[in-house]
Amino acid sequence: MKRIAVSPNVINRLPKYINCLERLKWKEVDRVSSAQLAEMLESTPSQVRQDFALFGNYGAQGYGYKTDYLLQEIKAVIGLNMTHNIAVIGVGSIGRALLEHIDFNRYNYRVCAAFDVDSDKIGSEIKGVEIYDINDLKSYMKMNKIDIAMLTVSPTVAKQVAAQLCDMGVRAIWNFTGEALGLPSDKILIQNVSFLDSLFTLTYRLENE
Amino acid sequence: MKRIAVSPNVINRLPKYINCLERLKWKEVDRVSSAQLAEMLESTPSQVRQDFALFGNYGAQGYGYKTDYLLQEIKAVIGLNMTHNIAVIGVGSIGRALLEHIDFNRYNYRVCAAFDVDSDKIGSEIKGVEIYDINDLKSYMKMNKIDIAMLTVSPTVAKQVAAQLCDMGVRAIWNFTGEALGLPSDKILIQNVSFLDSLFTLTYRLENE
Repeated sequence: MKRIAVSPNVINRLPKYINCLERLKWKEVDRVSSAQLAEMLESTPSQVRQDFALFGNYGAQGYGYKTDYLLQEIKAVIGLNMTHNIAVIGVGSIGRALLEHIDFNRYNYRVCAAFDVDSDKIGSEIKGVEIYDINDLKSYMKMNKIDIAMLTVSPTVAKQVAAQLCDMGVRAIWNFTGEALGLPSDKILIQNVSFLDSLFTLTYRLENE
Repeated sequence: MKRIAVSPNVINRLPKYINCLERLKWKEVDRVSSAQLAEMLESTPSQVRQDFALFGNYGAQGYGYKTDYLLQEIKAVIGLNMTHNIAVIGVGSIGRALLEHIDFNRYNYRVCAAFDVDSDKIGSEIKGVEIYDINDLKSYMKMNKIDIAMLTVSPTVAKQVAAQLCDMGVRAIWNFTGEALGLPSDKILIQNVSFLDSLFTLTYRLENE
């Protein structure tokens, strides 16, 4: 597996490269130049070449990059060549919508289980994922390897549940609660998702472009 | 109103500053230093000072920034001092969850209407927002000023609906469909939201940190 340390800015561009390369692959475009990629991504050819050079892929002068090879390489840099197990903590409207909406399997993620407090939900399934009693979370975590907890509980209990997940040895939380979880970064990775961030960016562009 | 052109990287940091300053305000912290902000944001004091200097706010040496004043300034830079009207196009699980989940009013957004094709949904309300027949979208748009369309229709109809929105004169689409809408950037602003981006970043960190 590739182990390459890259800057946060480069990491942020990797999903966009994947999206772009998948569209090219879907259109059966076998080879692509840095100029074409730059245009699709509103970037510059030199930026694209610089990013790919980080992964040891320089393409060939006047010949471009092999679409599928580059796609697999970038996926491997992220770690998508390995399976990652996800547990969904909280099956309210957001948890349910994300479970229904996101194509996890496509990128080697396996949603193993969901947890909730609501007895009406416990025992039912969403997209083949069983919803368990959150009281059984600890014993489940002991017996199953979960890489990422998708935290979609109500904001009022977010910190408390996150602290429990940390105690249970969960290594990464994908946090949709909007709450700052306040956990030590040497113990657990937190990725905060804010819907407002993109709305603010759009609003800025709307008022300034 | 402020009209300051800043780089995309700075724009991406503005929501994080807002989040951070709101937490400080909530804790009744009146003044904050660039060092404190940098620590909260995993940034550097010089980066923070450089960003704020763009908006003409230099703080005072050894004295820091006034929390609330800086918060209002950054909000004004984004345009949050003005009301923006949103229409929700598509009330499936994602549209509904976002409507329920996001605190739009807090940032001066007004969700004016939602639209769907499902006759069971049409005429009902979510959080006080009425769901209209999508066939009435055109006439609604003629009679009402909508700044941003939140596009939460199924991916299969995303492009078609987006093209219609563009024809109706909508200026900005907040796109949750995962589809590339392929509209001319001189006619309409598109902000794509991908849930996978943050999951990929988390996965990279999980495998590399």
